Amino acid sequence: MQQVYLDNAATTPLRTEVIDKMAEVLRSNFGNPSSTHSFGRSSKSIIEQCRKNIAAHFNVEASEICFTSGGTEADNLVLRSAVRDLGVDVIITSKIEHHAVLHTVEHLAKEFSIDLKFVEVDEQGHVNISHLKSLLITSKKPLVSLMHINNEIGNILDIEQVAKTVKSANGLFHSDTVQSIGHYKLDLAELPIDFLAASAHKFHGPKGVGFAFIRKNSGLRPLIIGGDQERGLRAGTEAVHNIAALDEALSIAYKNLEDEKAHIKTLKRYFIEQLNANIPNVTFNGASGHIDKSTYTLLSVRLPLKPEKAAMLQFQLDLKGIACSKGSACQSGSTQQSHVLSAILSHAELQKPSVRFSFSIYNTKTEVDYVVDVLKSLV
Amino acid sequence: MQQVYLDNAATTPLRTEVIDKMAEVLRSNFGNPSSTHSFGRSSKSIIEQCRKNIAAHFNVEASEICFTSGGTEADNLVLRSAVRDLGVDVIITSKIEHHAVLHTVEHLAKEFSIDLKFVEVDEQGHVNISHLKSLLITSKKPLVSLMHINNEIGNILDIEQVAKTVKSANGLFHSDTVQSIGHYKLDLAELPIDFLAASAHKFHGPKGVGFAFIRKNSGLRPLIIGGDQERGLRAGTEAVHNIAALDEALSIAYKNLEDEKAHIKTLKRYFIEQLNANIPNVTFNGASGHIDKSTYTLLSVRLPLKPEKAAMLQFQLDLKGIACSKGSACQSGSTQQSHVLSAILSHAELQKPSVRFSFSIYNTKTEVDYVVDVLKSLV
Ligand SMILES: Cc1ncc(COP(=O)(O)O)c(C=O)c1O
Ligand SMILES: Cc1ncc(COP(=O)(O)O)c(C=O)c1O
Repeated sequence: MQQVYLDNAATTPLRTEVIDKMAEVLRSNFGNPSSTHSFGRSSKSIIEQCRKNIAAHFNVEASEICFTSGGTEADNLVLRSAVRDLGVDVIITSKIEHHAVLHTVEHLAKEFSIDLKFVEVDEQGHVNISHLKSLLITSKKPLVSLMHINNEIGNILDIEQVAKTVKSANGLFHSDTVQSIGHYKLDLAELPIDFLAASAHKFHGPKGVGFAFIRKNSGLRPLIIGGDQERGLRAGTEAVHNIAALDEALSIAYKNLEDEKAHIKTLKRYFIEQLNANIPNVTFNGASGHIDKSTYTLLSVRLPLKPEKAAMLQFQLDLKGIACSKGSACQSGSTQQSHVLSAILSHAELQKPSVRFSFSIYNTKTEVDYVVDVLKSLV
Repeated sequence: MQQVYLDNAATTPLRTEVIDKMAEVLRSNFGNPSSTHSFGRSSKSIIEQCRKNIAAHFNVEASEICFTSGGTEADNLVLRSAVRDLGVDVIITSKIEHHAVLHTVEHLAKEFSIDLKFVEVDEQGHVNISHLKSLLITSKKPLVSLMHINNEIGNILDIEQVAKTVKSANGLFHSDTVQSIGHYKLDLAELPIDFLAASAHKFHGPKGVGFAFIRKNSGLRPLIIGGDQERGLRAGTEAVHNIAALDEALSIAYKNLEDEKAHIKTLKRYFIEQLNANIPNVTFNGASGHIDKSTYTLLSVRLPLKPEKAAMLQFQLDLKGIACSKGSACQSGSTQQSHVLSAILSHAELQKPSVRFSFSIYNTKTEVDYVVDVLKSLV
């Protein structure tokens, strides 16, 4: 059976170069980077070189990159410490954040008895900047957490405008950039962002490794306590092979960025055209139908299907070998509605089934044709 | 130059089967285990099979194994949640714990304003059980954290006696078993232990993955918040390749346990004999010189050297290609004395340099001879 993987926002296949790099490191560099003997130094030099390479993509210093076990840990590290250690008196976020942010700030607000405020988003998922401004003035030390690229509807935040708005209110700005790093470039020498979170498995790297960007002298303190690794910010023996693979994946992603972006964008445009041509009354969630207002990697499709038929949709797509998603992967198993779609769609719109298709360089037009055919047959 | 790796308590070289297993999973199973489509299910089934295999080694249920990014995170998860969520009113530990426990409980005691008490250890590093009993009776809900195998002096805790003592005082018992899992078997259906922590890179698996054993209905809650992975106990996309490699490494370790133990024990015995024969006044720290009272994997040697000569020792051993350690790897870089040795040795004894040699199946008698020769030449 044909297998079509269109769930690249959940996770991406690894590049062969990344697997090879990892295997090479595992075979030749098993030392503990904290050991001072030659085996240790050679592992240490690998992770420090990776740190430099990664920092260079963002125009920051190597010491501002802190390796973690993934995007979720990076979000947790930043958010918890900002609230606990930096005198934050209110957290401002949106209802369309990933659970790694949303559930974390809900916990933190309770635990530290501080306010949690939600900035308004419109029915297309755009953050209301004047509302953000009005929330900011009510606080002495706000922490704003807004994601760059939304993982369900593909919206792109105007991260520069938000960063500047937060800074002018003396706030701290964290952005979950898990869906953007490796797909968009960010110049952090220009952008006044304090913190961000990245995860390798979203850009053809391995799962279980990511990093936080933590601006110098931020005063953050660790989430995981123990040894002095990562300049005291994150205890635990570093996963040298995973870090080397992350670096390799990110380097390739940024080296090939324009070509790969062009390929994927063409696919997405084609997918939109074909859906419009073949499925009357198809609609797109958030900004994802607007080719230049949303990430090129993702399309959230709302299908004109009756609720009875909707329930079976994921199952039928899976039977046809099509891998896509209802919402974010972490909720795939649940029968609950996506919290992101619930935040932006009307009750009537939510009755229709939505499917997230997300693309990578490994997808082809033929696959898009196949998917459109299958969808047509189901509608 | 000859390279002799005798720092297996810091980290171990990977078995080729483990690297192969990891590469295989990376190539064929990249799906996100939370995705419900076929790619996701196949990853999910890998991690659930690993969980079952691991649980079986310890005679527990699969749901009692929670994958983490390593031993440090497992220690943090257990200790923080026990204190925060389970009504613990005093933490009891010892001064010879790993920093993943020691620094964590120091933080927790402050953060939650509860007492932190240290059970006495004698000059051989043995925990004083009657003192433990006397500490336990002062508390309603004590949390005891004592490691099974000490990573610097190799002492073996009488884990059964401690577990039973803690239980009879209605306490919670966590054991950092990072140095014992893969080297010793534990039957957790028999031993009344609540929690334990393990790390794959100590038994020829990869860095950046480990697990916590968390007894059923313990009431623990997550350290890292976000998606519903690991039954809600640990958010973040699972590192499927690392988990598969952990399982592979642990299965091989336990399958070969008796043979490999015999080989390593013979080496350690031989090393002790040769040191005694060739270096007058050599002594051994903790219980490590007693072949049956300490782990077979480690020997902590105190050399009869003047302080002037002591400073250069690590450097000279490194020049001769010998990888060993002053204390735990996470402190290797520092010029500070080991906190473990400081807790058990006299001022005079601390003036003499101590070196930790730790063994694996890949070491040989020839290597031991070489190291003894080098040490002899330095003394
Ligand atoms: C006794 C002990 N506990 C905890 C750890 C930490 O484990 P990890 O490096 O996987 O975080 C180590 C080794 O580093 C250890 O030896
Ligand atoms: C926007 C966003 N944030 C955070 C995460 C969590 O990253 P990780 O799975 O590496 O913990 C994800 C994906 O899983 C994501 O899409």
